[in-house]
Amino acid sequence: MSNNKPSLYTSLSPALLHLYDVNSSIVVIIDVLRATSTIATALYNGAKAIVPVDSVAECIRIGKQIEAITAGERDGQIAEGLQQGNSPFEYSKEFIEGKTLVLTTTNGTKLLHMALEKGAKEIITGSFPNVDAVCNHLVKQNKNVILACAAWKNRINIEDTLFAGAVINTIQQHFSIACDSSQIAHTLYLQAQKDLYHFMQQHNASHYHRLTNFGLEKDIRYCLTPNIANVLPEYRDGKLQCAEK
Amino acid sequence: MSNNKPSLYTSLSPALLHLYDVNSSIVVIIDVLRATSTIATALYNGAKAIVPVDSVAECIRIGKQIEAITAGERDGQIAEGLQQGNSPFEYSKEFIEGKTLVLTTTNGTKLLHMALEKGAKEIITGSFPNVDAVCNHLVKQNKNVILACAAWKNRINIEDTLFAGAVINTIQQHFSIACDSSQIAHTLYLQAQKDLYHFMQQHNASHYHRLTNFGLEKDIRYCLTPNIANVLPEYRDGKLQCAEK
Repeated sequence: MSNNKPSLYTSLSPALLHLYDVNSSIVVIIDVLRATSTIATALYNGAKAIVPVDSVAECIRIGKQIEAITAGERDGQIAEGLQQGNSPFEYSKEFIEGKTLVLTTTNGTKLLHMALEKGAKEIITGSFPNVDAVCNHLVKQNKNVILACAAWKNRINIEDTLFAGAVINTIQQHFSIACDSSQIAHTLYLQAQKDLYHFMQQHNASHYHRLTNFGLEKDIRYCLTPNIANVLPEYRDGKLQCAEK
Repeated sequence: MSNNKPSLYTSLSPALLHLYDVNSSIVVIIDVLRATSTIATALYNGAKAIVPVDSVAECIRIGKQIEAITAGERDGQIAEGLQQGNSPFEYSKEFIEGKTLVLTTTNGTKLLHMALEKGAKEIITGSFPNVDAVCNHLVKQNKNVILACAAWKNRINIEDTLFAGAVINTIQQHFSIACDSSQIAHTLYLQAQKDLYHFMQQHNASHYHRLTNFGLEKDIRYCLTPNIANVLPEYRDGKLQCAEK
């Protein structure tokens, strides 16, 4: 069963990330609703950089220090003391072009820092709005991959699992996948792909309900739309920036 | 959205069990290949009791103390120093009737002890061979439920997830299920139910490969067969025994 393809694993919750060999893989941080969708959107619309931080206090401190916009949420709503929230619609070209954003979210930015602590050397972020950029990069790099879902406070969620499945569906022939979580994610995606939004509704996805209670159906529809902000956010020197082409 | 149905959650890995309220729920320990299938089979064939222990040393010690049969595996093979392995075919009526078994396995018996440490007060074990007994019990009890998958060294596996999905498919209308892991397990089961064995083969399930490498296809087919050892193993006073009817 020897082959020379790199391996691909899926970690469906941050509480499972320690099971995988983070420091020899490209780690794809996945927080579909909404952190990584918003990161792709802000960079697509010309943000200079996004500084992901793992606490609101740190967000405020660094925001002042580098004179950047502070943004983020806790439990799906703008965190107190920050200027902006975590909706992709807040980051139009008019608003964000040329600016730097300091961002903290309940799950996504925390997972990114966890990956760093575990020794990750290559980190990118993935979401439906930039799914093709992610897939193209992973195929081109030809290295081991970990699809790392941010989940919701460590509980596995449908939307991040679906994104992992979408990536696997596109790039599977380039990787050796001996990982049941990846197979589960792929099977789920194949069931959902015709209408991701309908699948989320139908399957009572907990985050779908959390956000629709805040009136954010529009955000959800956007965050499930492939390739509308098709850039590759790469983490380097403390910042997420568009990869050079 | 108030309703009076009890809740149902699925923990897809022991590393996620701490996220759920173990001590106010019936915890169903699930280790399809092969611990909980073997437990159901031994009890169905008349074993007096099964004492689950979490180490080989403890298994040998207690086996001597109570003059019971010692059994178990590590990494899918009989552990050194134990008399029997973890295959359901080792526990025929002729062999096991009236006897007590002390059992230790890589994942299932460890998870049972983890649930105990976290305060679980009601523990049963589930597998395809006793799926109806499990479902009937859960519906009748009308309490909160946690379907706790043993996984493989904390990595989520397809077979335990499928069993959780099978239970959900049968009892869902009796429970309030606000749990994406449960939805994922159910979706997976609906895809697989026509031929569970074929699904395992097709999806390259890691444990399927581990066991077929040991020549255990027969065990896998047995462990995926519903209701061929349809008893309800309940944990009480340190032992698993058939629930009284």
